Amino acid sequence: MRILVLHGPNLNLLGSREPALYGSDSLASIDTALRQQAVAIGVGLSSFQSNCEGALVDHIHAERDRTDGVLINAAAYTHSSIALRDALLATALPFVEVHLSNTHARESFRHRSLLADKAIGVICGFGPASYRLGLDGLVEALRTRGVV
Amino acid sequence: MRILVLHGPNLNLLGSREPALYGSDSLASIDTALRQQAVAIGVGLSSFQSNCEGALVDHIHAERDRTDGVLINAAAYTHSSIALRDALLATALPFVEVHLSNTHARESFRHRSLLADKAIGVICGFGPASYRLGLDGLVEALRTRGVV
Amino acid sequence: MRILVLHGPNLNLLGSREPALYGSDSLASIDTALRQQAVAIGVGLSSFQSNCEGALVDHIHAERDRTDGVLINAAAYTHSSIALRDALLATALPFVEVHLSNTHARESFRHRSLLADKAIGVICGFGPASYRLGLDGLVEALRTRGVV
Amino acid sequence: MRILVLHGPNLNLLGSREPALYGSDSLASIDTALRQQAVAIGVGLSSFQSNCEGALVDHIHAERDRTDGVLINAAAYTHSSIALRDALLATALPFVEVHLSNTHARESFRHRSLLADKAIGVICGFGPASYRLGLDGLVEALRTRGVV
Amino acid sequence: MRILVLHGPNLNLLGSREPALYGSDSLASIDTALRQQAVAIGVGLSSFQSNCEGALVDHIHAERDRTDGVLINAAAYTHSSIALRDALLATALPFVEVHLSNTHARESFRHRSLLADKAIGVICGFGPASYRLGLDGLVEALRTRGVV
Amino acid sequence: MRILVLHGPNLNLLGSREPALYGSDSLASIDTALRQQAVAIGVGLSSFQSNCEGALVDHIHAERDRTDGVLINAAAYTHSSIALRDALLATALPFVEVHLSNTHARESFRHRSLLADKAIGVICGFGPASYRLGLDGLVEALRTRGVV
Amino acid sequence: MRILVLHGPNLNLLGSREPALYGSDSLASIDTALRQQAVAIGVGLSSFQSNCEGALVDHIHAERDRTDGVLINAAAYTHSSIALRDALLATALPFVEVHLSNTHARESFRHRSLLADKAIGVICGFGPASYRLGLDGLVEALRTRGVV
Amino acid sequence: MRILVLHGPNLNLLGSREPALYGSDSLASIDTALRQQAVAIGVGLSSFQSNCEGALVDHIHAERDRTDGVLINAAAYTHSSIALRDALLATALPFVEVHLSNTHARESFRHRSLLADKAIGVICGFGPASYRLGLDGLVEALRTRGVV
Amino acid sequence: MRILVLHGPNLNLLGSREPALYGSDSLASIDTALRQQAVAIGVGLSSFQSNCEGALVDHIHAERDRTDGVLINAAAYTHSSIALRDALLATALPFVEVHLSNTHARESFRHRSLLADKAIGVICGFGPASYRLGLDGLVEALRTRGVV
Amino acid sequence: MRILVLHGPNLNLLGSREPALYGSDSLASIDTALRQQAVAIGVGLSSFQSNCEGALVDHIHAERDRTDGVLINAAAYTHSSIALRDALLATALPFVEVHLSNTHARESFRHRSLLADKAIGVICGFGPASYRLGLDGLVEALRTRGVV
Amino acid sequence: MRILVLHGPNLNLLGSREPALYGSDSLASIDTALRQQAVAIGVGLSSFQSNCEGALVDHIHAERDRTDGVLINAAAYTHSSIALRDALLATALPFVEVHLSNTHARESFRHRSLLADKAIGVICGFGPASYRLGLDGLVEALRTRGVV
Amino acid sequence: MRILVLHGPNLNLLGSREPALYGSDSLASIDTALRQQAVAIGVGLSSFQSNCEGALVDHIHAERDRTDGVLINAAAYTHSSIALRDALLATALPFVEVHLSNTHARESFRHRSLLADKAIGVICGFGPASYRLGLDGLVEALRTRGVV
Repeated sequence: MRILVLHGPNLNLLGSREPALYGSDSLASIDTALRQQAVAIGVGLSSFQSNCEGALVDHIHAERDRTDGVLINAAAYTHSSIALRDALLATALPFVEVHLSNTHARESFRHRSLLADKAIGVICGFGPASYRLGLDGLVEALRTRGVV
Repeated sequence: MRILVLHGPNLNLLGSREPALYGSDSLASIDTALRQQAVAIGVGLSSFQSNCEGALVDHIHAERDRTDGVLINAAAYTHSSIALRDALLATALPFVEVHLSNTHARESFRHRSLLADKAIGVICGFGPASYRLGLDGLVEALRTRGVV
Repeated sequence: MRILVLHGPNLNLLGSREPALYGSDSLASIDTALRQQAVAIGVGLSSFQSNCEGALVDHIHAERDRTDGVLINAAAYTHSSIALRDALLATALPFVEVHLSNTHARESFRHRSLLADKAIGVICGFGPASYRLGLDGLVEALRTRGVV
Repeated sequence: MRILVLHGPNLNLLGSREPALYGSDSLASIDTALRQQAVAIGVGLSSFQSNCEGALVDHIHAERDRTDGVLINAAAYTHSSIALRDALLATALPFVEVHLSNTHARESFRHRSLLADKAIGVICGFGPASYRLGLDGLVEALRTRGVV
Repeated sequence: MRILVLHGPNLNLLGSREPALYGSDSLASIDTALRQQAVAIGVGLSSFQSNCEGALVDHIHAERDRTDGVLINAAAYTHSSIALRDALLATALPFVEVHLSNTHARESFRHRSLLADKAIGVICGFGPASYRLGLDGLVEALRTRGVV
Repeated sequence: MRILVLHGPNLNLLGSREPALYGSDSLASIDTALRQQAVAIGVGLSSFQSNCEGALVDHIHAERDRTDGVLINAAAYTHSSIALRDALLATALPFVEVHLSNTHARESFRHRSLLADKAIGVICGFGPASYRLGLDGLVEALRTRGVV
Repeated sequence: MRILVLHGPNLNLLGSREPALYGSDSLASIDTALRQQAVAIGVGLSSFQSNCEGALVDHIHAERDRTDGVLINAAAYTHSSIALRDALLATALPFVEVHLSNTHARESFRHRSLLADKAIGVICGFGPASYRLGLDGLVEALRTRGVV
Repeated sequence: MRILVLHGPNLNLLGSREPALYGSDSLASIDTALRQQAVAIGVGLSSFQSNCEGALVDHIHAERDRTDGVLINAAAYTHSSIALRDALLATALPFVEVHLSNTHARESFRHRSLLADKAIGVICGFGPASYRLGLDGLVEALRTRGVV
Repeated sequence: MRILVLHGPNLNLLGSREPALYGSDSLASIDTALRQQAVAIGVGLSSFQSNCEGALVDHIHAERDRTDGVLINAAAYTHSSIALRDALLATALPFVEVHLSNTHARESFRHRSLLADKAIGVICGFGPASYRLGLDGLVEALRTRGVV
Repeated sequence: MRILVLHGPNLNLLGSREPALYGSDSLASIDTALRQQAVAIGVGLSSFQSNCEGALVDHIHAERDRTDGVLINAAAYTHSSIALRDALLATALPFVEVHLSNTHARESFRHRSLLADKAIGVICGFGPASYRLGLDGLVEALRTRGVV
Repeated sequence: MRILVLHGPNLNLLGSREPALYGSDSLASIDTALRQQAVAIGVGLSSFQSNCEGALVDHIHAERDRTDGVLINAAAYTHSSIALRDALLATALPFVEVHLSNTHARESFRHRSLLADKAIGVICGFGPASYRLGLDGLVEALRTRGVV
Repeated sequence: MRILVLHGPNLNLLGSREPALYGSDSLASIDTALRQQAVAIGVGLSSFQSNCEGALVDHIHAERDRTDGVLINAAAYTHSSIALRDALLATALPFVEVHLSNTHARESFRHRSLLADKAIGVICGFGPASYRLGLDGLVEALRTRGVV
């Protein structure tokens, strides 16, 4: 089983900025922890970050034959990108949506996700642990579907 | 650390009805699994189900001095009960909101939660695994806050 | 064929109060008439009234294996209770929704029913006769479906 | 007591088309059944169908002195015709609104009726039986008002 | 100068029905008064009533070369007929919109007119006098534009 | 019969400014014409203009015992002043609302009038003739009510 | 004159929790003060608290023949319970609505009350003094209506 | 393959009126061009225009057994007629929706079509060429479905 | 402690007009009663009425150093005046909002107050007693804050 | 070139109140700075403040022949006064709209300006410097238009 | 005449994915067919696809002097990109908007196009034939405008 | 003090296109003028333009340690890009938002800015002078905050 982790815009700044809102872990440390977790549960995992909506779409296309499921934190694009939604639907890749912060407790334009109704599940608000829980839930859901 | 698990209306029917939507696990088996998970991570756990909004409020009041965090699947009351919200706020108990199904993919009146903006985090769509992930995330968040 | 008649909040006051709006029949006389009608058309019938949303949900659960169809006047809960909707869906009981008054001619918050789109049919505005017509329609629909 | 039955646009196609949605009875068989029911309960009954909004208004005007009550299935005009509403109000004819299908379970533009708040009562979802129940309810309501 | 007076659906019932709302004048007496007023101010005038939207459109088309201005009470079609709006725009006939009752004081669906923003002017609420004032204003506006 | 004519903000500039929109008549010439019309039909008439909402309210109060009906062009205050509405209701003075331009064809914030639903009638779009038609309609309505 | 005081969900926690928002008085002390005030102005008074919507409805029904007026703080049910509204209307008991906090300064879903348009009056924002002012206003209103 | 071309209200005026908006071709010349195009591609074609909603519905009913596909410019009825929608659905005729002008660039009430979501395709904005493109697309779609 | 009582537009007419809605007390008698109440509880009190929004703003400015709290019935300006809101905020004067009638039971444009979320508390529906209760509540709140 | 500076309601309190929000400069010091800036760039400048909407309208009328451009901070009237908009349009005076605070970051009712779409430009959020930048931009725009 | 064909995000996946929704043709085969069609009708044609909004804008800029008209399927960016709209307007290139699927029959966020009101015409729902019909209509429209 | 000037999509076309709307200055000449202004007031300044949302985000990240304040004209992305908002918030860079045109006078989708509520200030409508005024205001605001 191969998992693709996608990080949307501004997540490259994690850790060095706004720790009160997003925590003090860097994106690198989150990716390291996810790789360790992946090894422990016996799945492959790669990750990709971009600030560019088109680059994220390109990456989903390029990796679609090497990927069984996607763990995505689309950040700002969660609320504005129909292109990302279409890329996930066009490649028919099952995905789990995660957010570091509790998006329900922030500005109203962050309450609508253009991805959520097509996701296996949604997890938000646990800080970096959202990624860990999301990987856990994604792998279990894929195994239930017979992906190994 | 003592966790209170709350199950809202109609969840007592789990397993025997509508397995396509809610899975084939009974509420008893979910509670058993949660208790085993609690033992494994060294926390206490009790659970309560009711179809009555007032009984759920009463239970939160009664247990508030014996509880450090709440794992709640408010089911239908998620979308209509300001009283449950007020009970959680009045007792100042930190809580995590979970749902078996992906509420974003169902009727529009299930898209608004009256609890979510006050939750530590929200998890939906993973079936019974939503509870497991939610307990995991809740305990981590409480330990980060110094609850042991 | 066994029919369960459910009466929602405040209907216990029927007859003694607000006859201009709800008619002068008591709930007891309505239930008596329904039982006589049931005998005449050869079906079993029991009825239950509660002012408590949870008690109505509990009753649906408890009676689900002894019931073939539900005739429900959810009164105020028609417009606010997702839990009642979920109880009817979770037990997969076919139901007919009735109202004494013409809800379309009253306050705007009574125009939306959370049950109607899942009902076999909806009848409103005929006073106590709404129940009689509803029982008639429910039984015919069930017989068409092969329930005897 | 003389009852006027009005059928709106496309109902002339009943039976030969879309039986899954509207049933297999033709409009003629519905009218025949209504006439037999009328004879049985001792009232006069005539019926009229048109695809033209203006023709339905004209017919209400023309028959108003020979009519005590109207049983109307305005079909598509239910949701768009203020003229039909005005015709029924201008002639002060009491009426019952019926629909074959459960309009609450269909497209959102069928949820609003321009007639319902002025009707004695509304019945939907019972297929051809909606007409039978509607005639029953209309006649009882008129007799309660002293029309014989 | 030739004026076409158009009366929409249900206005043929004027005088005999609902005098409290629409006054006790019949449509014939209104037309007679308008013809006398037309003679007095030296203009030609014909009038037409129909309950059918299409017939009103047909009549506007047929009379367009014999007409300099239209005085229209579209009644219920004021609020639903884009076809009447298009007919008046397609024939480029200047028109004045009148109503017997004060539509701003009635149901909310009567507050929007699909004709008003294209009219020379709008007059409502004066009973039959709305027609008299409307003819007066229409003729003055046309004369200002050089129609004689 | 004594008529009070009220002109709202900016109408003092009439004639000297924006003739394309409001015509070339000055407010003085409109008042002169209204006084001549009043003499011709045997009623008294005074007029008042102010750019101040409070001054218009004060004037209505001051004149209420010397006034039988009000002809009001509230201009911009039509759409924002609940105080003017309350003044007209508190003094129980019957009134007719007029506008020079067709407010339905202008900015959307001019489509809602806070006065219209309480007016005898509304007239707009005829330029200065709106005042003449309005005085005509107001006097006729008052005479119908027995004011002489 | 007999007054029934009703307290809605979570108000049993008053005083021990969230004093910054709700003050430090317990519900018992509020009830004691109300009883003293009642004695001082010569009226009878009983009070009841429940977290259950149905229990509040039941209590209104049970006490209706021993009650002349209701002083109600429905708390969270203010904004969601049509059943409480119906209970107050069905028993025709005059009532005053009070709130400890200023609901207009809180979440938007607390701005709409399902009771307020049927109340004698509404008081909010004075902390426990809201109850005192409400009892004062209720008794004066009832005496004005002839209740002694 | 037999194609039915339907023209809605006011289209009979094409060519003689408003050429800036609708072009200078008459409806007759459009029909002639469509018939020539039909001959060239080997399909039968008849056309019908009416200003009456009911007549259009009647015509669809009457021609349904002689028709394989419908090319419809419903004009104003596009935005208001549920009856036309129902007629097309009831007869199960595949159809293509065309408009001469770009409806997206006109009044907002022309932005919603009650037909479009059930059409094979929609074409607007090319003037008379919209019909030619629409016939081309309709015939190709029907042939893809095996109609010859 | 010095209290400033402010009365908004049209309140100068109290007593002589619309007693059914506003009661038969004049504004003078209300002010007299308030002054007596003020003497009894040991506070100073002055009052001011104007129909002009700007004059009310001016008065708040002028009195701000001689005032400890404001009791305001802004009448129509409650719903439209941001300037009054700004004046109260700019002077940082604590205030209580009162209304004679129950604004929740009147037109929908009276349901929104531009002052309420900044008030200590709001009281409506008790007729002249609203002022008495408001003064009582205001003084208690100020004393709680240490104003004497 | 002569510039008229207009200050709306409550701005007379500037400096002495709420310095955190509006800065510590008084309106007099702002006017002094603007006059010095005007001298430096060779234009005439006068200023006027009022809390009364009507007085501001009157002043625009009175000064219109002595003014080439308006620099306006309408404060609260920005969001409610159609009369000010009409005054600026009726006198055809070009204007620039300024605000001390960033209105986009305040209450939602301050997000809509009734002036902005007719302004040359809009500047907000720079404190007293908003006036300086606004005068700069206004003068440049007028000189571009040939006013000297 | 030179035509630029633009394909938006995810269209590079055409053919290999989701044939039920988008058909089995690849983008390459669509482009080949368009080039053959272009040769047949004597116009030049180039095409470009990108998943990046900015790259599409850049391409429009770069090709603007070598382009007479644009045939654009903006896919997901149709509904979110004001930048694409601005690019087309800034370069003043006439364009036709096409979609493979019937966007009116899909999610509601696909019903609004940010391009359509500025297009010559819009075509949707014919699968790959939408491109063919669009090129046909675009070339005819450009030739009507004198482009050769 | 170092200022970063950011130009959003399509601004590279400035000067050569649409001079009526955006003026005849090129982006190069605007940048030159800003650099001269920067030298004159003693601050450093660099500028960057891109049509790609992601590239603008990348640039903000890359320059954040060499930047004290941002002057941004986000053009079309003003209204759709949450990613740009997040980039400015994540880097905590103070910024001023400018627009060449008066966005309040254009299409309604340009009325909402996703940046404005977080800006120091907003300036629009002065053409290229908007940049000059914005730099002036930004530098003054930064100096007030102690940046030199």
